[in-house]
Amino acid sequence: MEEKRPLIFISNDDGYMAKGIQELIKYLSPLGDIVVVAPDAARSGSGCAITVVQPVHYQLVRQDVGVTIYRCSGTPTDCVKLSMHAILDGRKPDLIVSGINHGDNSATNVHYSGTMGVVIEGCLGGIPSIGYSICSHNPDADFSATEVYVRQIAQKVLEKGLPPQTCLNVNFPNTEDIKGIKICEQAKGYWTQEWEPCPRKGDDNYYWLAGSFEDTEPDNHKTDRWALHHGYAAITPIHIDMTGYHFMREMSEWF
Amino acid sequence: MEEKRPLIFISNDDGYMAKGIQELIKYLSPLGDIVVVAPDAARSGSGCAITVVQPVHYQLVRQDVGVTIYRCSGTPTDCVKLSMHAILDGRKPDLIVSGINHGDNSATNVHYSGTMGVVIEGCLGGIPSIGYSICSHNPDADFSATEVYVRQIAQKVLEKGLPPQTCLNVNFPNTEDIKGIKICEQAKGYWTQEWEPCPRKGDDNYYWLAGSFEDTEPDNHKTDRWALHHGYAAITPIHIDMTGYHFMREMSEWF
Repeated sequence: MEEKRPLIFISNDDGYMAKGIQELIKYLSPLGDIVVVAPDAARSGSGCAITVVQPVHYQLVRQDVGVTIYRCSGTPTDCVKLSMHAILDGRKPDLIVSGINHGDNSATNVHYSGTMGVVIEGCLGGIPSIGYSICSHNPDADFSATEVYVRQIAQKVLEKGLPPQTCLNVNFPNTEDIKGIKICEQAKGYWTQEWEPCPRKGDDNYYWLAGSFEDTEPDNHKTDRWALHHGYAAITPIHIDMTGYHFMREMSEWF
Repeated sequence: MEEKRPLIFISNDDGYMAKGIQELIKYLSPLGDIVVVAPDAARSGSGCAITVVQPVHYQLVRQDVGVTIYRCSGTPTDCVKLSMHAILDGRKPDLIVSGINHGDNSATNVHYSGTMGVVIEGCLGGIPSIGYSICSHNPDADFSATEVYVRQIAQKVLEKGLPPQTCLNVNFPNTEDIKGIKICEQAKGYWTQEWEPCPRKGDDNYYWLAGSFEDTEPDNHKTDRWALHHGYAAITPIHIDMTGYHFMREMSEWF
């Protein structure tokens, strides 16, 4: 009897037409059957947002051997939730993969990232989940150097699984020559000079989100930002239990 | 010389008109000067989403002695970011407070919560930050039993601060008789039966988000869900560094 191929669920936050997701499908097809349910257009910066004030709709885009693609009107998190409820007909994916995002999701950007919204939702559902991003916002970014790493990491996770409450945030430098993999901590930092004025009809209170990221520990060799700046692929394990255990005892003395 | 009153920044995800935020303003006014910048309408389920595809606009609603209120077209996270950049004219709040949310944000719901989106953003900016929620979606919920706790917790945080990368998720049971405060862990669980079909013109692929939360450890006395079910106010310290430190060593042997 032929062994059943793993079911790999793919989504992203750049939309189902993005180059990054098309490359991801290509890279992972050798490892299993692919179902894509991705937003119908870009949803950058969605975090773990869900759609509560309007219905969410999905639609089949294409069905080929081993690859089925749907588009969805919701957020990246909605795509995962709706798939588990309706689109996959009760089949549970062996792996959930998101990306490849056009843009860096390292450091504290995990909180804003729709790419990681997919991954966190997968992890909440108990499914091994990986997010991939590249440090380039170019819609035609060259992903080719990432192929071997994307497949290797996915293969490892299919083989070994991930611990409970744990998922992966993988970021690639924008280079043809990736030096290898580093297992990293999330760099600490914050965004600065975040808004550009865009006045309208004399009203100065309109702003575009912009800004640059301030790494508060640029020399810390353990961080994902450091790894990326030095040409490595950065894997940051992410713990979705956000409890601040370190502060519980001290705080219990407050009351 | 008179001592300067603390600056308390307030936002939420239910919009500046919600009863929860009006109560919060009332409860915290004795502690400091209040600036509110809150969404112009409900933004439930926003998580840490940011607005990248259109400009964000803010507008003064009301200015009284000690209380200034602005409305903002963006997400809860945008409200914080735009305030730090433009609205507050460089004044750094002593405390950021969000809520009181109409609805439970305990357990893993911290990931989806726009209320906690405000708090996580405040924490990323290095400002002590607290989110308050009550386990009732009633727009006219009775918040009166929470008043003494809301003020006591805010007062403690103003006095003592919070550790780096750490903020608070406070949830109240929907009762007139709160039994006290428990310092809690985030309960583990997931949403189930999440979507209700709402077909349109013969297309069955439309769904409303719905569902119920499945607590996978209902007898664990340490969790926020347990505390709430037993009538306590639950304070869950939240660590915004999501690095899965527990898995780093094992994973470094993979490659």
